[in-house]
Amino acid sequence: MTVMRRLRELQLPLPEPPKPLGTYVPAVAAGGMLFLSGMLPVKDGRPAWTGRVGMELSLDEGRQAARLAALNGLAVAQAELGSLDQIKRVVRLTVHIAAALDFSDHAVIADGASTLLASVFNETDGHARLAIGACSLPAKMPVELEIIFELC
Amino acid sequence: MTVMRRLRELQLPLPEPPKPLGTYVPAVAAGGMLFLSGMLPVKDGRPAWTGRVGMELSLDEGRQAARLAALNGLAVAQAELGSLDQIKRVVRLTVHIAAALDFSDHAVIADGASTLLASVFNETDGHARLAIGACSLPAKMPVELEIIFELC
Amino acid sequence: MTVMRRLRELQLPLPEPPKPLGTYVPAVAAGGMLFLSGMLPVKDGRPAWTGRVGMELSLDEGRQAARLAALNGLAVAQAELGSLDQIKRVVRLTVHIAAALDFSDHAVIADGASTLLASVFNETDGHARLAIGACSLPAKMPVELEIIFELC
Repeated sequence: MTVMRRLRELQLPLPEPPKPLGTYVPAVAAGGMLFLSGMLPVKDGRPAWTGRVGMELSLDEGRQAARLAALNGLAVAQAELGSLDQIKRVVRLTVHIAAALDFSDHAVIADGASTLLASVFNETDGHARLAIGACSLPAKMPVELEIIFELC
Repeated sequence: MTVMRRLRELQLPLPEPPKPLGTYVPAVAAGGMLFLSGMLPVKDGRPAWTGRVGMELSLDEGRQAARLAALNGLAVAQAELGSLDQIKRVVRLTVHIAAALDFSDHAVIADGASTLLASVFNETDGHARLAIGACSLPAKMPVELEIIFELC
Repeated sequence: MTVMRRLRELQLPLPEPPKPLGTYVPAVAAGGMLFLSGMLPVKDGRPAWTGRVGMELSLDEGRQAARLAALNGLAVAQAELGSLDQIKRVVRLTVHIAAALDFSDHAVIADGASTLLASVFNETDGHARLAIGACSLPAKMPVELEIIFELC
């Protein structure tokens, strides 16, 4: 099944791709891969969540923020490529999480993005992943994703 | 216009490429791309700024530090490739910023590096970018850049 | 000399490759490179160290943690590729270090991973490197590595 069909079956409408916050572009293709800019939990041009996981935000809110950022990543890739069927797989996902200093559940938050991507792309492939606690993120959002796709 | 000519027109002399701080090399080419080591705001072998943005350092100082680190990245690429005209474009820039815990203006600091790169390379292309708040950076410098170039 | 032979000469037995902590895979090959997931100082399925460098942990403990995480990276690459001789070189290593807010010796910790990799692979090549202070890392471990290998 194609990625575009799976999105429809999952009833996952893609949001508007978020606009860059400075002098850069949403994505660049090079070496057979598509490198996305930092994907944030933005909705309709505004942060959907602000604050730190384990302080102002719960684990579940952090997880939802990671999922929304991944959806924004799909929207950016779709706008860039014309179709998500140009993507062969997710190569690597890095999840930066603004969290409390004693935070340890990075994997729970990161799975919010990983399970969304696994449900849309071929689950047998999987992606490499890092999860890291950041001190702060743009506009005080709780999650920022680095995504690299492999192109067909 | 070539990159080397544009550098001359902008009257941007490249600094000495900074030396690695440990057991690594300044840059590695692979898969048609050049991956730089972390670029810091070093000048003449010393940190040009130390401290955190939003605490010891102002927004403008952070922005200048990011610009200097980007200039160092150009110097490293030039030393590695012999000429910046071997570079097709900037693929992705990640700006790590040592900042106050409540910092939110990552895009302002990161633009210090992005606008320098955009003025030197073809402005119509642009690059992908992430900006992330770090807890600490080597030798207490305020900014560290990850840069990936695509080669011609 | 091959990488596999050098490992034997150095008497460096590879550990069991650590298992992913969530919905991802240990490594993905794309564009002639192998991208590893975040490598942590895990031994026999458990964190070998927890805490922050410069607080609960000494410089030397942080350095050993970085070395163990790099060994885990070799184990993952070996399991993925069948043989480390499929690797041409290390492209880039990023060392994320959970450290005190005023930490500045990132290069010392990162060299724990870099010298291990340099001893196993051809020392004349070297790798690009970044070292960054994280606010927190998964399961409170002190170090997490991002590793990209170039394949033969």
